[in-house]
Amino acid sequence: MSTAERAPILLTPGPLTTSPRTRRAMLVDWGSWDNDFNQLTADVCARLLAIIHGEETHTCVPLQGSGTFSVEAAVGTLVPRDGKVLVLINGAYGKRLAKICQVIGREFSTFETAEDVPTTPEDVDRLLKADPTVTHVALIHCETSTGILNPLEEIAKVIESHGKRLIIDAMSSFGALEIDARRIPFDALIAASGKCLEGVPGMGFVFARTSSLQASAGNCHSLSMDLQDQQAYMAKTGQWRFTPPTHVVAALHEALTQYAEEGGLEARHKRYAQNCQTLLSEMGKLGFRSFLPAEIQAPIIVTFHAPRDPRYSFTDFYNRVRDKGYILYPGKLTQVETFRVGCIGQVDANGMREAVAAIAETLREMEVFEI
Amino acid sequence: MSTAERAPILLTPGPLTTSPRTRRAMLVDWGSWDNDFNQLTADVCARLLAIIHGEETHTCVPLQGSGTFSVEAAVGTLVPRDGKVLVLINGAYGKRLAKICQVIGREFSTFETAEDVPTTPEDVDRLLKADPTVTHVALIHCETSTGILNPLEEIAKVIESHGKRLIIDAMSSFGALEIDARRIPFDALIAASGKCLEGVPGMGFVFARTSSLQASAGNCHSLSMDLQDQQAYMAKTGQWRFTPPTHVVAALHEALTQYAEEGGLEARHKRYAQNCQTLLSEMGKLGFRSFLPAEIQAPIIVTFHAPRDPRYSFTDFYNRVRDKGYILYPGKLTQVETFRVGCIGQVDANGMREAVAAIAETLREMEVFEI
Repeated sequence: MSTAERAPILLTPGPLTTSPRTRRAMLVDWGSWDNDFNQLTADVCARLLAIIHGEETHTCVPLQGSGTFSVEAAVGTLVPRDGKVLVLINGAYGKRLAKICQVIGREFSTFETAEDVPTTPEDVDRLLKADPTVTHVALIHCETSTGILNPLEEIAKVIESHGKRLIIDAMSSFGALEIDARRIPFDALIAASGKCLEGVPGMGFVFARTSSLQASAGNCHSLSMDLQDQQAYMAKTGQWRFTPPTHVVAALHEALTQYAEEGGLEARHKRYAQNCQTLLSEMGKLGFRSFLPAEIQAPIIVTFHAPRDPRYSFTDFYNRVRDKGYILYPGKLTQVETFRVGCIGQVDANGMREAVAAIAETLREMEVFEI
Repeated sequence: MSTAERAPILLTPGPLTTSPRTRRAMLVDWGSWDNDFNQLTADVCARLLAIIHGEETHTCVPLQGSGTFSVEAAVGTLVPRDGKVLVLINGAYGKRLAKICQVIGREFSTFETAEDVPTTPEDVDRLLKADPTVTHVALIHCETSTGILNPLEEIAKVIESHGKRLIIDAMSSFGALEIDARRIPFDALIAASGKCLEGVPGMGFVFARTSSLQASAGNCHSLSMDLQDQQAYMAKTGQWRFTPPTHVVAALHEALTQYAEEGGLEARHKRYAQNCQTLLSEMGKLGFRSFLPAEIQAPIIVTFHAPRDPRYSFTDFYNRVRDKGYILYPGKLTQVETFRVGCIGQVDANGMREAVAAIAETLREMEVFEI
């Protein structure tokens, strides 16, 4: 077996397990100035935009760096310096978005619910009525801290009815959960290469409302993160402003080809939903309880309560499951001991069953009986 | 032949041609939270730091994104909000550094010489005497616009004698030209994965003076680019703050192994110097004139005057040479028509001779006789 075949399956929310075909796309070096590479970038952006049906209204701007870089770029570019952001929080990524506003100097307020409580459209309506100085609302679609899904469409409509603008962090949902720009009004939707599209990490992208992007010159606090400047340069030259992560772009291109071959968003969602169902039911048989009720659980990542057995320790558990070929993810809750299992990446329901079998064997080895 | 073998040789200043071994290192997916990956990152940083002998004085902080992201991060993190930067310019990258200061709101002044005129230590001495409010000086070591080398060591000593701090953009020189932190005083030296180390593009790194980095909390204009925060988190957890470009890190690790096998900086410099000599002499035989005199020409990239023949057009020339397997680079000068040929990447003197043979054949095809 090659090293690649021996590598563990990542049941993590990105980086995740990619297909061998996607990784092999990185075996070629591309000239960042060359027309072939410009074509590759243009193709990637066009295919991404088609996923949200945003061709008429939005522009896809790719950006070097992790997804967080793109979130910061979207806030910095699209929120004017005298704007005010209402950040809706029910986990670590909402908190991070508020931190971004603070560091880059955009006025903001926060509304925080518990980690198992989605924000409601009624909350947002009340908050916008109470503070007319808010110009933008920021929402995490699927909060990876727990896997909770926030009601995007209903919240978007409320925001539009107030004449405010919406910024969506869709990092862990884009590509697997439907987001239709023809129906859901937003100024920015942010995601990244190494999530549900099953590319490798190293670039993000922002779907920016074209009219807002065009009006945003001079807003940005950063040269590297200025999406308006990035897009203007790309429109003029076909090239990225600064050196692109060429191999990451090539991998994403190949991943998008496989995404289409699989059947696009519908098929991707179906596979992840099956992964999630299998995981929940198989883990349930072992006695594990998931942190979220089913109706707010997105099929992306599941948070499980840690076993109560005193013989359980996460590190030992993690290492033993890893030795059996599966990489789990630690919990991100401060109050409750948990761990997380991702449902996304190049894995299917059989793979999930095998992962849970490895977990069961690990518990037997550790003599952890009280789940 | 596989696609990888058919891909053209990049005679460009990064992305450049990497070795098959380096690219194959990207065939494995890594968990960004996993201990194996943390070890990979720690190894990369330790090996990078050893190249400048900075173990006692400096800290290597890796950052997602292109090299420019790391330059912006270094200026934003290490220059206090009330600092003032003197930017020494003789090309596009110096201008970009000044633009960064402007956008992120650091006071700055510029000193610009012609693109074939290095900044001198006497210039810097005079400038620092004239403006005692300057706190930091920013210098491009090898300006990729032309390939010009600025006298780093002499300038660094002058800056130290004034009690000021030096920020070096060593993007295209690091790894091939010696920079010894024990001898050259600097607060930050910036480079990236996809240049003379022959990794793939997607991350940069900053060697920051440890004491300055520790004193820089709260300086940065950006969350994603805050090197102090990035380093503090990494010191505590072994992990990157935000999703790392795992495959790019793995490729850089493999590239550094080959760097050591080749014989480190000395051997890398020797190969590039031979590439450059071969290029200059073979192109000279065809009648090409290089833009820079030999004594200020770094062995990284060479700017050539475009042929005077009216049958010459860069696009036609570029495409024909490309079809023969070599990707050249356009010129970046506004006043003179030029093109550039890189000497760096997985190529040796024979490869350079073959590239020039392809150029010669192209000129015959185009019937370009007057060089």
